[in-house]
Amino acid sequence: MAITLYELAGAEQDRRFSPYCWRIVMALRHKGLAFEGVPWRFTDKDKIAFAGTDKVPVLVDGEAAIHDSPAIAAYLEKAYPGHPPLFGGPEAEALSRFIVEWTDLVLQPALFRLIVADIPPLLEPMDADYFRSSREARVGMTLEEFVADQESKLKALRQSLAPLRRTLTHQPFLSGSRAAWADYTVFGAFQWARCVSPLKLLAEDDPVYRWRETMLDLFDGLARKAKGFEV
Amino acid sequence: MAITLYELAGAEQDRRFSPYCWRIVMALRHKGLAFEGVPWRFTDKDKIAFAGTDKVPVLVDGEAAIHDSPAIAAYLEKAYPGHPPLFGGPEAEALSRFIVEWTDLVLQPALFRLIVADIPPLLEPMDADYFRSSREARVGMTLEEFVADQESKLKALRQSLAPLRRTLTHQPFLSGSRAAWADYTVFGAFQWARCVSPLKLLAEDDPVYRWRETMLDLFDGLARKAKGFEV
Repeated sequence: MAITLYELAGAEQDRRFSPYCWRIVMALRHKGLAFEGVPWRFTDKDKIAFAGTDKVPVLVDGEAAIHDSPAIAAYLEKAYPGHPPLFGGPEAEALSRFIVEWTDLVLQPALFRLIVADIPPLLEPMDADYFRSSREARVGMTLEEFVADQESKLKALRQSLAPLRRTLTHQPFLSGSRAAWADYTVFGAFQWARCVSPLKLLAEDDPVYRWRETMLDLFDGLARKAKGFEV
Repeated sequence: MAITLYELAGAEQDRRFSPYCWRIVMALRHKGLAFEGVPWRFTDKDKIAFAGTDKVPVLVDGEAAIHDSPAIAAYLEKAYPGHPPLFGGPEAEALSRFIVEWTDLVLQPALFRLIVADIPPLLEPMDADYFRSSREARVGMTLEEFVADQESKLKALRQSLAPLRRTLTHQPFLSGSRAAWADYTVFGAFQWARCVSPLKLLAEDDPVYRWRETMLDLFDGLARKAKGFEV
């Protein structure tokens, strides 16, 4: 069965920058599953309506059409049990959920405050207008105003990484001796930033930097080779 | 083999309030292991020096003397494999580490800012002096000054709980369908607060409140019956 993944893309169709899509791209490679990535834009809502959502990632696998990245991960784990496990059992899947929520509610908002204004110039015109107006309505000011005082926002980001940083002084990956779903989820956030912004987020002596370097090297440097910035 | 656990105690020797000791008390009960809890005070450093530490919990099991709560949990899991698992495999043990670090670096500091001034009156005089002077040196002001503006600190605590809250809308426990090490770790922080402070930390409609209620009921209401405040 051929797997198709609808992935958020910029004006250049190989700039695939969604953090949620990166989780799934890494998960598919982890499981050794071939797939076709279809570029999708914010204003292409009608193209994924068949899956009952207006957001990517959407994964289509034969008759199945799944959205929401944890649901897609759960689907892949169940549908492909003979492939390398994404979780490592039901307890590990449950524990990963906390890391997913921390990524969504702490890490990505901290990154958003730093990089959001870098995004519109990389989008197709229609998407750029949609992105700017929807995000400016959400934050109540222009994106440029929202990202002001970069220094304090960078400090806040690095401070918010404390639990990640200390975990990575104990073990190579969040999931232990090798990367799995929790690592892909957190990495997706950093890869989102890398794909859209030249900002150096991490000091090179940060254990989080070293972990990210390792993640960038996985699967023959898949994420490192992706269109983005050298950060 | 008899297991002994050195536990931090207040002036009343049944006020066992250390968050780190609560993790281990719950873990021992989870594994169905009997133990003797020995009350220990901050200024009893010489009584645990044999274990190579000046902090509790210290667990003594036959020839083994272990300190540091994650190390004790790892020891129990390895030494008692036929008992209910504390983690659920190596991936789950690794993933729990992030939740331990989040508890140490985010949750407990947010609680400390609210409850620390409630602690000295509950301690023996020598411990109260030690606790106050060491903590005031750390925070650079009196404990009473440090806990000022309770309302904003309570708001910050509740906001910091966002990843925990949303995880608990997806599943009954951090560890999935039943409580395990990650739950005991986070619960230890709340139980610390309950043992020393009458402050109501959680709204009753908060999923975290409901989870804490369930945790208080485990093991025949062990934590609920412990000396503390009805919060």
